[in-house]
Parts: sequence; C-alpha cells; structure tokens
Amino acid sequence: MLDLTLEAASIIADETLRKGREMKFAPLTVVVLDAGGHMKVLKREDGCSLLRQQVAMGKAAATLGFGFGGRELARRAAKMPALFNSLTAMSDGNFVPLPGGVIIKNKDGRILGAVGVTGDVSENDELCALAGIEKAGLVADTGGE
Amino acid sequence: MLDLTLEAASIIADETLRKGREMKFAPLTVVVLDAGGHMKVLKREDGCSLLRQQVAMGKAAATLGFGFGGRELARRAAKMPALFNSLTAMSDGNFVPLPGGVIIKNKDGRILGAVGVTGDVSENDELCALAGIEKAGLVADTGGE
Amino acid sequence: MLDLTLEAASIIADETLRKGREMKFAPLTVVVLDAGGHMKVLKREDGCSLLRQQVAMGKAAATLGFGFGGRELARRAAKMPALFNSLTAMSDGNFVPLPGGVIIKNKDGRILGAVGVTGDVSENDELCALAGIEKAGLVADTGGE
Amino acid sequence: MLDLTLEAASIIADETLRKGREMKFAPLTVVVLDAGGHMKVLKREDGCSLLRQQVAMGKAAATLGFGFGGRELARRAAKMPALFNSLTAMSDGNFVPLPGGVIIKNKDGRILGAVGVTGDVSENDELCALAGIEKAGLVADTGGE
Repeated sequence: MLDLTLEAASIIADETLRKGREMKFAPLTVVVLDAGGHMKVLKREDGCSLLRQQVAMGKAAATLGFGFGGRELARRAAKMPALFNSLTAMSDGNFVPLPGGVIIKNKDGRILGAVGVTGDVSENDELCALAGIEKAGLVADTGGE
Repeated sequence: MLDLTLEAASIIADETLRKGREMKFAPLTVVVLDAGGHMKVLKREDGCSLLRQQVAMGKAAATLGFGFGGRELARRAAKMPALFNSLTAMSDGNFVPLPGGVIIKNKDGRILGAVGVTGDVSENDELCALAGIEKAGLVADTGGE
Repeated sequence: MLDLTLEAASIIADETLRKGREMKFAPLTVVVLDAGGHMKVLKREDGCSLLRQQVAMGKAAATLGFGFGGRELARRAAKMPALFNSLTAMSDGNFVPLPGGVIIKNKDGRILGAVGVTGDVSENDELCALAGIEKAGLVADTGGE
Repeated sequence: MLDLTLEAASIIADETLRKGREMKFAPLTVVVLDAGGHMKVLKREDGCSLLRQQVAMGKAAATLGFGFGGRELARRAAKMPALFNSLTAMSDGNFVPLPGGVIIKNKDGRILGAVGVTGDVSENDELCALAGIEKAGLVADTGGE
C-alpha cells in the first residue's frame, strides 16, 4: 500500500473499538489520519465526552507533526516543556504528545498515516490502536521501546 | 432512539458512501454529528481533496446551528448575505449553507443530529445522505420541498 | 441608573421571553450586555438551534460596537457591504447588523447596554426586546424610525 | 428530565446566586450549559470583572469536554500538565479545570449539562453550584470524594 485507503483505515478504526469493548475499557474515540494529516475515519463511541474528537485528533496529529510516536513525544515533552508549549500553540492545540498516538507504516517503512485513540488511560488507548493496525496488516510505531 | 448511537451513525455513513459508489458519483466525504454538533462518525473516500472534512462538517453543523436543512439555508443565504457572513465568521467557517446538510430526526420529530456530505454536486451529495438516513430507519429534514 | 444592574437585566430578559410566548413566536434566545459589551444575562429557550447564543450576542454587540441600533445597522450594511464585512471579520463574527439588536439607555440618554434577540424573524425578535426594555423602565434605541 | 429545560437551568442559576448572597461571597457569575455544551442561562452579578463570563463558561465546558467534575480535573491537571495545556489550547481557552465546574445529571445518571461558577474562591463557587443543582431536584457530580 502506498497511500492509506479508506478500507484499511476503516479496519483499523473498527478493530480498535472492538478491542476496547473486549477489554471492557471506557468508551473510546478513534481517528485515523492519512500521511498528510487529514482524516480518513473517525468514530466516537456512545458515552464519550465532548472534547474526545479533538484529543484523538491531537494524539494522531502530534505523531505526524513532530515525527515520533506518542511514547517518544511524551518523553520529550517532559524534558522540553517550552518547545512543546510552542508546538501546542502553533497547532492551536491540535497536538497531544501522549501514548495512544501511533504512526502507521507499510512493510517498507513508508509512513501511511497515524491513529489517535482516547477515552481510557493512554496505555490502554494505545493497546487498542495496536490491535487495529495489526488487523489491517500494517506496521505500528508507538515511539516506545 | 433518544440520542444518536454510534451504531446508527455508522449505518448512515456507510450507506451514504455505498449509494455514492452505486451512482458512480465523485469521491465523497460524509460526517454524522450528534444533536450537540459533535462528531460521531466521519469517512473520507480515497481521492477526496483536503478540505472535504471541513466542508462536510460545515454542511452538517450549519443545519444544527441555525435550525434548518441545507436547502432552506441556501435560500436564506441568498436573501440575507450579511447575516450569513456573520454566521460563517462566528463559526470560524464551520457553517456551509448548502444541500447535502441534512437534519436527522427520530419518528417523534426529536432532533438526533445531522449528516454532511460533500464531493459531488450538492444535490447528489444530498441524495446519498437521504439513502443513509433511510437505511437507519430515521427521518431526514433537508429543508426543501 | 448609571450602570445596568443584574436586576434590571433579568427583568429585560424575562419580559422579552414572556412576550415571545404571549405572541407564540418561535423559541427565542435573549442576551443583555452592559455598556462595556459584557454579558449580564443570557437565556436560551428550549428548542433553539445551536448558534442562537452567538447570533443574539452578535446582534447586541453590533449595536454597541458601531453605535447604532440594529435597524440602522441593517440599512448601512446594505449600502456599505465591504465595511460591514470588515466589521464582521474584526469581531470574529460577533457582529450581526439586524433588527433585534437594541441599545438600552436611561432617561438621560446614557447608554447602559444592549439587548440581542433571535429565534423568530428579526422584526418579531425586536418587538420582544422592546417589551423587555419598557418593563424595566428604560429607553430603547432600535436605530429605526 | 431527558434534556435540561430553561426552567430547570433558571432555578439552578438563581439559587446559585442566592446562596452566594446568603454566604456573603464575592460577586459571582454563573453559567448553565446543556449536554452539548451550549448555554441555557448566564447571570453575572454587579461588580464582577470582565472575564468572569469566560471563566464560568470554561469551568462548565471543561467538565463536559473531558468527562469529569472540576475537582477531578484539577487533580489531573496537576499530574498531566502537557495534556492540559493541549486541552486549553484546543478549546481556545474555554477549558478551566477547577472546582466550581459541576456536571448535572438526572436521577438515572444521564448527563443533562454542567454549571460553572466563578467570583469567590473555587470551593465557595462550588458550594453555590451545589445549592443550585439541589434546588432543581437534580444530581451534582463535582469530581470530588
């Protein structure tokens, strides 16, 4: 795959949410962005609070915006708060440096887009995103070891 | 149904896009909002240009924001340009008064949310939205006769 | 009265809405601003669409912003569209030059604030605002003859 | 009650302010939002400073935006400053994670909206909001123990 298709993005979103239900996590919102940072799919489960769309977007956009998965972004934000304040401001807040933001690559390492998940604690959000990306036969980059 | 469920919103979005493929329309973007104007589902087909998400959002949000389906909004915009300039500005552009923005109601007339579709000409966009709402067993208000 | 009190603003808002119910108008939103353009009272009736708060605000703010009641603003907007586009943009849309925006004065002509009403046609919105201002024993400036 | 009525929202606002006067607190601003985050009622007492409307809005909107009462939001903000910087920016500042932001539920646990109060110290603001919600026969969620 050279460009993320709606078909693949839909598989990622649906499997992310299915995993959340299996694990009995809190209601989730999932967004899948293409490599240009534009939405392919968003789904917000019943019971999600009102800013969840923006938080999911911000997690995914941050990974593409600064070039690292959410785990690495969280480490850098802790070390460089002034820089990350700037990144937040220059993105109008569409920048959430946390786990649950995961870069999507193909087998050759080409970046196809990113997933953002929010609703439960960030590690659980990420676990669901990973299930979704795997289901689509693609490669995840969480920014973690 | 008292509140739009993700299940119903997903049916609306998927059937909207299926109808577009059946009719061989240009690639479409569809968004489904709840009654408070917050996203439940968005899907952007392969080949859609970059602002389609915002246009679909703007069509749906305009119907909930001013209380009429897109056809009636288009008529009013033609008659009251100063007011509609203000509505556009106060929404940061998240207000597109055109067909393809359709209010979703339940059988009792309760507003559950709105659909916004963009990609082809507005009348074709609307036709797909109507197919989606009907498939979910809900009632559409296009603002038109 | 030198400065608009909450007590007076509440009388204006409540009487505006009572008049709307008496006349069987569509659901209304009313806002009362002080002379500095800051909200004293807002009330949004059940069934109002989502942007009504902003429209009511915009009607009231426009009168204080450019110094004329809504009727005069509407006449000027028709004659000077470029200027009014600028006023809309510089206010981020918080500027709606229409009847239903009414300046509140005391008996000595001192500006105390403004009322903005929206929901029905602008002339009906204005009629309700006038009932509210009269009930509070204050003087209305609609910008009209 | 399925949707917050103007009647209930008015009771909440008026009793919030009455309680503040009884307790001789500083001048208060109170806002009551519906479940979609849209204003039903705002009242600003005489002597409130100019940003009080926005602070009250931000307290109420934050609870609906992230799904917790103001006390829990304040705890989380202290632990996760980068996330809360993002939430503030993505909301254009319409996000104040402090006591005095209280979620309103009906007896069945359905979220009907939120109250935001500001003017005195946050704990006193909250005390008034609780009096208002109780007077309306509804259930408060402060996010506290």
